[in-house]
Amino acid sequence: MEPSHHAAGFAAIIGEAHVLTSPEDKAPYLREWRDKYQGRSSMVLRPGSTAQVSALMRYAYNHGLRIVPQGGNTGLVGAQIPLETGEEIVLSLSRMNSVRAIDPDGFTITVDSGVVLETLQQEAEKADRLFPLALGSQGSCQIGGNISTNAGGTAVLAYGNTRDLVLGLEVVLPNGDVWDGLKTLRKDNTGYDLKQLFIGGEGTLGIITAAALKLFPRPKKLEAAFAGLQDPHAALKLFSMAKAQAGPVLTGFELMPRIGMEFCVAHLDGARDPLQTPHQWYALLELSSGSEAFPVHDLLEAVLSEAFDAGIVEDAAIAQSMNQVSDFWRIRHGMSEVQKKEGGSIKHDVSVPVGRIPEFLDRTIAAVREFVPGCRPVPFGHLGDGNIHFNISQPIGADRDSYLAKWDEMSALVHGIVLEFGGSISAEHGIGRMKRDLLAEVKSPVELDMMRKIKAALDPKGILNPGSML
Amino acid sequence: MEPSHHAAGFAAIIGEAHVLTSPEDKAPYLREWRDKYQGRSSMVLRPGSTAQVSALMRYAYNHGLRIVPQGGNTGLVGAQIPLETGEEIVLSLSRMNSVRAIDPDGFTITVDSGVVLETLQQEAEKADRLFPLALGSQGSCQIGGNISTNAGGTAVLAYGNTRDLVLGLEVVLPNGDVWDGLKTLRKDNTGYDLKQLFIGGEGTLGIITAAALKLFPRPKKLEAAFAGLQDPHAALKLFSMAKAQAGPVLTGFELMPRIGMEFCVAHLDGARDPLQTPHQWYALLELSSGSEAFPVHDLLEAVLSEAFDAGIVEDAAIAQSMNQVSDFWRIRHGMSEVQKKEGGSIKHDVSVPVGRIPEFLDRTIAAVREFVPGCRPVPFGHLGDGNIHFNISQPIGADRDSYLAKWDEMSALVHGIVLEFGGSISAEHGIGRMKRDLLAEVKSPVELDMMRKIKAALDPKGILNPGSML
Repeated sequence: MEPSHHAAGFAAIIGEAHVLTSPEDKAPYLREWRDKYQGRSSMVLRPGSTAQVSALMRYAYNHGLRIVPQGGNTGLVGAQIPLETGEEIVLSLSRMNSVRAIDPDGFTITVDSGVVLETLQQEAEKADRLFPLALGSQGSCQIGGNISTNAGGTAVLAYGNTRDLVLGLEVVLPNGDVWDGLKTLRKDNTGYDLKQLFIGGEGTLGIITAAALKLFPRPKKLEAAFAGLQDPHAALKLFSMAKAQAGPVLTGFELMPRIGMEFCVAHLDGARDPLQTPHQWYALLELSSGSEAFPVHDLLEAVLSEAFDAGIVEDAAIAQSMNQVSDFWRIRHGMSEVQKKEGGSIKHDVSVPVGRIPEFLDRTIAAVREFVPGCRPVPFGHLGDGNIHFNISQPIGADRDSYLAKWDEMSALVHGIVLEFGGSISAEHGIGRMKRDLLAEVKSPVELDMMRKIKAALDPKGILNPGSML
Repeated sequence: MEPSHHAAGFAAIIGEAHVLTSPEDKAPYLREWRDKYQGRSSMVLRPGSTAQVSALMRYAYNHGLRIVPQGGNTGLVGAQIPLETGEEIVLSLSRMNSVRAIDPDGFTITVDSGVVLETLQQEAEKADRLFPLALGSQGSCQIGGNISTNAGGTAVLAYGNTRDLVLGLEVVLPNGDVWDGLKTLRKDNTGYDLKQLFIGGEGTLGIITAAALKLFPRPKKLEAAFAGLQDPHAALKLFSMAKAQAGPVLTGFELMPRIGMEFCVAHLDGARDPLQTPHQWYALLELSSGSEAFPVHDLLEAVLSEAFDAGIVEDAAIAQSMNQVSDFWRIRHGMSEVQKKEGGSIKHDVSVPVGRIPEFLDRTIAAVREFVPGCRPVPFGHLGDGNIHFNISQPIGADRDSYLAKWDEMSALVHGIVLEFGGSISAEHGIGRMKRDLLAEVKSPVELDMMRKIKAALDPKGILNPGSML
C-alpha cells in the first residue's frame, strides 16, 4: 500500500490537523534551506508528545513505512530531507517544545527535543546559567537536531561538542518502544552508554524526543584580541601558550589568512583591519570566565606579551569594548559570506589533529595551487579544535562554472591529504545525504561493518532515515 | 576440546614463555585483590603487540574459546576475573606498555592499553601537561582497564570521567579484526561514535589495545579548604555558589558527615579535626588552576566569606601549606578505611542528580536507621558528581556477622531509593560479576534488549568476558 494511504491511520493517532498532506503545508519541510535538496513526502507528521511519536513509529514499523525525523530543518548535509522517491515520510518534532525541568544548583536542564536552541540558551540565562552550544542557525535549529548531528559551533574549545553536553536522552526506537534514558547523572557505570549511539546518529537509529543537558556558570567577563602572525606554525605556538596559561578560560581561538581579511575589508560593511600593518595570518583569541574574580584582561595581556617577547606574535590589538569584541567576531563570521563576492568557492569542513594544523595547511595550500594555478585558498576556522573550513576561491577573472566543475577533483585532493593526516572529512556537519558515498571511502571495512551491524540490530527493517549516512 | 589443549596453538602465536600454565604463574591473574573472587583459567595469555592480540582472538574465535581481558587487575566488581568453571582464558595486556606518541601543543597522548596510569600521569607531567585521571590504584591499574570501566576518581568534577578523556581507540574485535579508531581529533562527525561502546564496555565487546587521550595544562596553583556545615542542603548551596564563582577551577568538592570525622580522628594516625568545634557535616573544597595569573586563594576566600555571610557555612579553614592540603585529603581518603575499626560496614557506590543529594541523604539515612536501629550511616563522597559512597557501620556492640548478613536486604532498601531518585546503583565501579544480577532489576526491558542486541551484533559467539555485565 502506498504511504499516502496511511494518512488516516496516522491521523487516528495525532489528529488530522497534524498530518500535513497539501503541497503548501508540506513545502517548508521538504526543501533544504540552501536549495541543495528538494525531497518528496506523501505527508508530514507533527506529533505532540512522546506517546504519540511512539504510536506513530509502531504503526510505521508494522506497515514497513520509512520515516525521516526532522527538527529545525537547518542541517547542512541533507539528513533531514526525504529522498525524491517520495517513499519516506517526514516526522517533525517542532510541536514538542517544552522545557521539562531545570536545576540550577545541579547545573542541568531537561527539555523536549523540539525546543529551539536560542530558547534553550535563554531559559538557562534566566536561571543565571549558560548552555554553551552556539551556532549560526540557533534561532531556528532544534536541540534534537543538534544532538542528532553532534553539532559543533563556536564554543567547542571550552565546552566540547554537543555530545559533551548531553547527560541523558529519551528516544523512540524504530518499533515504537520508548527508551527512557533521561537521566541527569554525572556518573553512571551500569552497562553500555547507549545514548552515545543516538548522539550524532542522524536519526538513523531512533527518534530523540527529550534530552537532559549540562549547564555551566554564566560568563561574567569576556575579552577578545586579534593577533598578527607570520604563519600557522606561529598560530599553533600561540594557541599552545594561551591554553597553557588560560586553560578552560580560553573560550575561542580562530585562525584566518590575510586574503580573508582583505575580502572582509573589501566586502563587509564597515569592517576595518584591526591591526595597523598587514600580516600573513591572524588569530582571534577570546577569553571568558564565570568568575568576577578572574583577571581575564590581565591574563590576555600576559599571554600576548609573552608571545610577543618570544617572537611568535608580530602585533596584537585587544578589544576595548564589547562593541569592538563584536567587530572582531564579525570579521571571523564574515569569512564565508565575503567569498561569494570573489566568484566561485570550493568548500571543505575538515579536521586534523590540532598539532598538525600548520603542516596540513602548508601541504594543502601548495597542492590546490598546483592543481588550479591562480586559485585563492582561504582556509580559516577553529584552530583550537583542529577544525578548518578549507575554502578555495576561484582565480581572478576565471569562469565561475568551469572552476566549480572542478569541485569533486579538488575535494578528492583535499580529502586525500586530510586522511593522510588522520583527519576527518566532516568535522562538524555530519554525513547525511551529501557525504554518504564518501563514507565507504574514508572508513575501513571493519568500521563500516560495525556500523552496519549496529544499524541492523537497532533498526532491523531499515525504516529510519534510510537515505542518510549508511 | 578442553581450553587447556590449545596452549600450543596460542604459544605458536606469542611464544611459550608468554602462555602461563603453572599454578604459581597464573595465580596473580586469577585472584581478585580483596579475595572476593578466585577464578580458574587453564592458561594466561600475555601478547606483546596488537597483531598478536588479533591473532589470539582469531584463534579463540575459530575454536569458540572464551576470553577475559585483564589490565592491572584492580577492578572492584570482578569483571577482570574468570569464572570458577575454568572455561575462560585470561588475556593480559600488561606487556603492551609503550607510549606511542605525545603532542604537547595539541594536548594529546597516545599509549598502549597496558600502560600503568601513574606512568601515564608522569609522561604527561614531563611534557608540562596534566592527565587528570587519578585513582587510589593508580600505581598498578592500567589505562585500558580504566577505559573499560569508565573509571571516575577524584578529578571528575573538573575533567569528567575517563570517557571524557578519550579521543580515540584501537580495538581488537572478537573475531580478531582490528578496528583502528585511534584518532586524536577534537571533532569528527562521520558516523556512529563507536569508541563509546568500548568505553565502560567491561571487555565484553572488544579488547582495547591502544588509546588516544586528552591532555590539559598542568595546575600551577592549588588551594583547599574544610567547611563546617549544618546539613547536606547547606553543602549543596555551597557547591552551587562555589561552582558559579570558580567554574572549572573548582576541581574538588567532597562531602563528609561528623561521624566520619570522628572515626578519622579516632583511628587515623595523626589526623586532627581541622575546625575548632564539631559540625554535623563537612565539605572539602579544592581549587586549582594551570594559570599563574588566577588568584585561586582570593577566590576561595571570596566563596567562603560569601557563604558565611549567607549563613550557609558555620566555620571554615583554608589550608596554609601543601602539607595541610594533604592532611585535608588524607581525612577524606581515610573515610572508608577507618570504618573497618568500627566493625562491619555495608557499602554502596551510588549516584543521584546533584541537586537531589540532600533529599536523598535525608530519606536514606532515615530508612536505614529504621531498618537497623542503632546502625551508623557514614555517607560521604563526590557531592559535585552526585556520587555518594553510602556506607553504613554496624550498631555499637552488635554482632558483626549477623549485621553483615543483612547486606542484601539493606542494599535492596538503599538501591530502591536510589532508583526512585533516578539514580545509579553503580556510579563508578561498573557491573562486572558483582552486580550482574542487579542489572535486570535496574534496567528497563527496552534498555536490556538494546544492550543484548549490541552484544550479539559485535560478539555473536559470546566469547568475550561472558561472565560479566550481561
